[in-house]
Amino acid sequence: MKLAGYQDRFENARLTRSKSGVLEVALHTNGEILVFNGHTHEQFVDLFHEIGSDTENRVVILTGTGSAFMETICPEGFDFFTPRGYDKIYREGKKILMNILDIEVPMIAAINGPVRLHSEYILLCDIVLATPTTVFQDKPHLESGLVPGDGVNILWPEIIGSVRGRYFLLTRQELPSETAKDWGIVNEILPAGKLLPRAREIAEQLATLPPLTTHYTRVALTQKLRRIIDEGVGYGLALEGISAADVARANRKDP
Amino acid sequence: MKLAGYQDRFENARLTRSKSGVLEVALHTNGEILVFNGHTHEQFVDLFHEIGSDTENRVVILTGTGSAFMETICPEGFDFFTPRGYDKIYREGKKILMNILDIEVPMIAAINGPVRLHSEYILLCDIVLATPTTVFQDKPHLESGLVPGDGVNILWPEIIGSVRGRYFLLTRQELPSETAKDWGIVNEILPAGKLLPRAREIAEQLATLPPLTTHYTRVALTQKLRRIIDEGVGYGLALEGISAADVARANRKDP
Amino acid sequence: MKLAGYQDRFENARLTRSKSGVLEVALHTNGEILVFNGHTHEQFVDLFHEIGSDTENRVVILTGTGSAFMETICPEGFDFFTPRGYDKIYREGKKILMNILDIEVPMIAAINGPVRLHSEYILLCDIVLATPTTVFQDKPHLESGLVPGDGVNILWPEIIGSVRGRYFLLTRQELPSETAKDWGIVNEILPAGKLLPRAREIAEQLATLPPLTTHYTRVALTQKLRRIIDEGVGYGLALEGISAADVARANRKDP
Amino acid sequence: MKLAGYQDRFENARLTRSKSGVLEVALHTNGEILVFNGHTHEQFVDLFHEIGSDTENRVVILTGTGSAFMETICPEGFDFFTPRGYDKIYREGKKILMNILDIEVPMIAAINGPVRLHSEYILLCDIVLATPTTVFQDKPHLESGLVPGDGVNILWPEIIGSVRGRYFLLTRQELPSETAKDWGIVNEILPAGKLLPRAREIAEQLATLPPLTTHYTRVALTQKLRRIIDEGVGYGLALEGISAADVARANRKDP
Amino acid sequence: MKLAGYQDRFENARLTRSKSGVLEVALHTNGEILVFNGHTHEQFVDLFHEIGSDTENRVVILTGTGSAFMETICPEGFDFFTPRGYDKIYREGKKILMNILDIEVPMIAAINGPVRLHSEYILLCDIVLATPTTVFQDKPHLESGLVPGDGVNILWPEIIGSVRGRYFLLTRQELPSETAKDWGIVNEILPAGKLLPRAREIAEQLATLPPLTTHYTRVALTQKLRRIIDEGVGYGLALEGISAADVARANRKDP
Amino acid sequence: MKLAGYQDRFENARLTRSKSGVLEVALHTNGEILVFNGHTHEQFVDLFHEIGSDTENRVVILTGTGSAFMETICPEGFDFFTPRGYDKIYREGKKILMNILDIEVPMIAAINGPVRLHSEYILLCDIVLATPTTVFQDKPHLESGLVPGDGVNILWPEIIGSVRGRYFLLTRQELPSETAKDWGIVNEILPAGKLLPRAREIAEQLATLPPLTTHYTRVALTQKLRRIIDEGVGYGLALEGISAADVARANRKDP
Repeated sequence: MKLAGYQDRFENARLTRSKSGVLEVALHTNGEILVFNGHTHEQFVDLFHEIGSDTENRVVILTGTGSAFMETICPEGFDFFTPRGYDKIYREGKKILMNILDIEVPMIAAINGPVRLHSEYILLCDIVLATPTTVFQDKPHLESGLVPGDGVNILWPEIIGSVRGRYFLLTRQELPSETAKDWGIVNEILPAGKLLPRAREIAEQLATLPPLTTHYTRVALTQKLRRIIDEGVGYGLALEGISAADVARANRKDP
Repeated sequence: MKLAGYQDRFENARLTRSKSGVLEVALHTNGEILVFNGHTHEQFVDLFHEIGSDTENRVVILTGTGSAFMETICPEGFDFFTPRGYDKIYREGKKILMNILDIEVPMIAAINGPVRLHSEYILLCDIVLATPTTVFQDKPHLESGLVPGDGVNILWPEIIGSVRGRYFLLTRQELPSETAKDWGIVNEILPAGKLLPRAREIAEQLATLPPLTTHYTRVALTQKLRRIIDEGVGYGLALEGISAADVARANRKDP
Repeated sequence: MKLAGYQDRFENARLTRSKSGVLEVALHTNGEILVFNGHTHEQFVDLFHEIGSDTENRVVILTGTGSAFMETICPEGFDFFTPRGYDKIYREGKKILMNILDIEVPMIAAINGPVRLHSEYILLCDIVLATPTTVFQDKPHLESGLVPGDGVNILWPEIIGSVRGRYFLLTRQELPSETAKDWGIVNEILPAGKLLPRAREIAEQLATLPPLTTHYTRVALTQKLRRIIDEGVGYGLALEGISAADVARANRKDP
Repeated sequence: MKLAGYQDRFENARLTRSKSGVLEVALHTNGEILVFNGHTHEQFVDLFHEIGSDTENRVVILTGTGSAFMETICPEGFDFFTPRGYDKIYREGKKILMNILDIEVPMIAAINGPVRLHSEYILLCDIVLATPTTVFQDKPHLESGLVPGDGVNILWPEIIGSVRGRYFLLTRQELPSETAKDWGIVNEILPAGKLLPRAREIAEQLATLPPLTTHYTRVALTQKLRRIIDEGVGYGLALEGISAADVARANRKDP
Repeated sequence: MKLAGYQDRFENARLTRSKSGVLEVALHTNGEILVFNGHTHEQFVDLFHEIGSDTENRVVILTGTGSAFMETICPEGFDFFTPRGYDKIYREGKKILMNILDIEVPMIAAINGPVRLHSEYILLCDIVLATPTTVFQDKPHLESGLVPGDGVNILWPEIIGSVRGRYFLLTRQELPSETAKDWGIVNEILPAGKLLPRAREIAEQLATLPPLTTHYTRVALTQKLRRIIDEGVGYGLALEGISAADVARANRKDP
Repeated sequence: MKLAGYQDRFENARLTRSKSGVLEVALHTNGEILVFNGHTHEQFVDLFHEIGSDTENRVVILTGTGSAFMETICPEGFDFFTPRGYDKIYREGKKILMNILDIEVPMIAAINGPVRLHSEYILLCDIVLATPTTVFQDKPHLESGLVPGDGVNILWPEIIGSVRGRYFLLTRQELPSETAKDWGIVNEILPAGKLLPRAREIAEQLATLPPLTTHYTRVALTQKLRRIIDEGVGYGLALEGISAADVARANRKDP
């Protein structure tokens, strides 16, 4: 589908594209920091699917809005606690990650501040730029008593090392941008005002390459990620779902 | 089996458990630094099996005793040099690692000093705390002319990187705790007196999570380790065994 | 085959072997810095095959000549732009890497200066020593509009981390030796004059181990690399080939 | 999307759904036997995507129209012979198979006659019913000099056995329905008039199961197929593409 | 542990061992046909563990008692419908299969009649003998609305072919022994009176081989089964558990 | 290398090539039935390597001489019973199978009679024709007390099914050609006099295809076999070697 067909369809993503095909995707809630909820979860399945289906997108920049990339989650639109309610989360959770990987052009994450959930979206990008205020954490899962099974369980140990990754998730560790750079999940740290300009500079450079080249380079560079995501995310989400059912049950009994 | 059933069965491991289910496993020989030999090898198969089978264990802390975690190996109880003698080592070696992975609750290693053999036990833990005196090395294998094939061959390159891991094993490199932290196999360095307190603090925090959550989080975080251990340790140990037979033969001829 | 049978057969590799079986392989063009072209590509398939087939090689040192390891590529002898021409590159590209892995003794890379192409040869070595002037880059692929699909796409993300590896290739980043050491692809940095002496020192030490031990240790340490290379390089090279055909076509139309 | 939103969108697929959620998909060209071409290839990506996205589909029956399931291919809408033209086929070819696997409900193939191309669509179904006139063959690939790389290379050896599968493809063997049943790719042979009634009978029975049960059963039964398709189809299609470029080149020179 | 230590510990398995080390395991309930329930599920984890740990077992024969191998399941001792109740099934279900594979000597199944549940135990045996009355079916899963996720989902498609295996499970197909032999899951069909004699004959022959040979042959022949079980059973069981929770919930609402 | 360079180098293989590039490889001992020994084992590594390296070979036919394909093994040239002696077998065993898979053109086995050892060579061919006198068996391994670990342990269960394959090896079952055809390892049974003519007919037909097409089709059809061989044969051979050492030791003590 052409950009015009989907550009205005997503309430939580502002899409703009340069002449050379660099698509900028800014996540937001009413033009401010994104608040993640069940509706954005559903919407992002489709968002990444459309981006991946449009061959006129030559490079993609993923960014946030305001002072954080993604920091708060709100229960609206989620039903974590019944099997069928959770099934929707399971379906969407699997599809979001595969749909990001189906965007077969270089992806640049331009992280404008804290990332306290769904950091796995960023780890699937090929290039990660961040501001000094950026902090990584996997906060809501264990805080709500849920298994961190939506892909963070696979990608963090894969990318920062198995022992570091397991510690990060189990202790809800906060990683400042400098540490994140030392550990290889951030490539460059830039002042807020230079974040998008630098992302665009890299993107425009990549957009000068022949289209098959950028396309196949993304494929050649993400083959392993596809496999580990496809193999492991369904299982992780199923375990997360059972833990949610258990939490729900405990709550029902609580009073 | 309940803790009472196995608590006093292991000559080389002191087991204590907090009210909330944090099991502390302190390896030792007569209350001092553990001396690894054929009997401990056999015993640890069973030790980790029992720990993993007892669902009342909510978090496990693995530590040593005295000034080292594991530093010396003694030939007693091992028969490395006949096919059937080595077969016992092969069987036990495979089982120890799978039994550690079958402990499906968070595991914290609290390293109280040098680790010069069986460092792979530690790399299978989810959180690694160490003292400043901790040093990692894979010493006895090449020293005795044996292939380092018992799992270190898989886990070190996996966790510190392929080139670093191969160098570490081939040169019998010593990694001080600071380097180990830089390379992502130690999460925190603590003075000796704070090692266990900190391990317990983290453990007790994890023990407040719902039991299915900690259980499934361990599963979700170790899926890849299970696969690479199950695929690779049998082969590594078989090659180590052939190298042992060759060394034995050379020795027979020597004089 | 005995060394004498292949020692003088390779125009671009000087081979010498110590009494204890340490084979030194110095790549060169007329005794100077190697210029990579289609003939060296073809020749290296055979070179690594012979080295791997000769069981008298106990340890292998791979080095360059002059002020760079490998810096320039010259189109001579390559036909990147027809399907059958590219097929030769595809065949050879797959074999070179598997033939390096079929050298089942410890391999030490002694990097004497910049490596701007075929850095994957080095990443398959077990120990990597480098001079301060060493710089890593994957330059010619994207410069010529080609997919970096010859193995660098697999090995860089594997060894320095997925996000770092993808950035490195997509931005043609230059990694000075210090960064390379920090990121785990160089084990030691040595002044030019000490590079080969140190490589030989390590090699001679390894050569004192029993032959089956060094042989099986290499096998035990490279099992994973074999799998990821065997699975991924053919596909990467096929994609690179299609990108080459596209570049060729664009060029034909250009004027 | 609800059925009404996509039911009439596909020129080559008639969609009807029973009250209980059994979706019947009849492929056709103007109400007659389907003639496969570049437009159907493009269309089927979307067709299977929509079916998989609509959670009201509880079971899917895939069938053909007239006396054959799929027998002829027509070059219209395909550009096999330029890199960018082929790239479209490569993209679509990968997506079609993954989109079929993303239909996470039981799929029943009701084969109404010969299948001489794209038999892999059928092998991804869970239940296969066929008429006595059904014949399986992989005809157009080698007939046109192209590598059979679109998934048949993976699925036939997987399902009928490696030696049988390779022979089948290399010799363009014709498998009558009885042999297909003996070899395990057809479950039941039925007279033409009973084909759809039987498919519906099984489908309606499955539709009485709880929706999560049929959903997760499909997932549990196709995990391996997802992996082998995801790993192998891109590579197979890339090789097919290079063979197409070679054929094109040979043809250009022919006269 | 020596046989004497566990021989009389299992209420539902009669164990006898010949002088040469052939262990016969006859499953039963009070000396009659086994009735599977939550207690047998728990017991079998331990049963197979003990058998696998006793190196004096040289070959194992697994059989049933009376006119069926395993035909009926009874809810006693199972709590399928709460997360924590199901967790016990999930833990045990994973362990039973791995414990069977940890029996690293040849296993012979001597099937004395219908197998309508847990047929996966048999498929993990190396040799399968059956009586003419033997019938295979996976009955209780879909009958109770549960996902067949305990390993049958992996092993049936693996062994009888993907399309056959999926049909078998989805339609609760009954496979008579002759079909089972044609499809490669039964090696020999024998009259009831000759079943055990023939099993013993083969077993005693195998027991004459050197112990390392039978041990390593089992390992070499089951490497792939270990991997697919370890990778897939946890996920299958997690999905089955969610389907159970959904069934429970539907039941709660029913009246 | 050109055919002339290696055609007369192999004492146990007669090589002839048709104009169209169909290479016929007839294994023999002095022009009669091949007797397998340590020298042929060594020689075949090289034989298959040369065949695979010569791009003028367009299709390969592998056959035997006289009344059997391979029936007897003779200890000459083998040292199964010392670690270093066995190491040679281990090295060669691994290389032979990978070298067969490195023959990247269609391979046709024309089986002229019993195959009682090294049947795995045949299972790596794409098309298998056999005479009525052909019988398959894996005889010498268990007969000599050795683990059948040279690849038969992987390929038989893969191709005829896991239960059938394990039974076949453990009981040294004899498979007549008809059963072999039923089980999918023989494609056609032909009278002795028509065996080679039919092989040549198929081969010549394949040789009319464009060279890249046959080349890439072989690659696309054997990707999975490469992986399972590369992963499993080293381990299987290591286990076989330990069993050989054990047999040797038992023999040393025997008198």
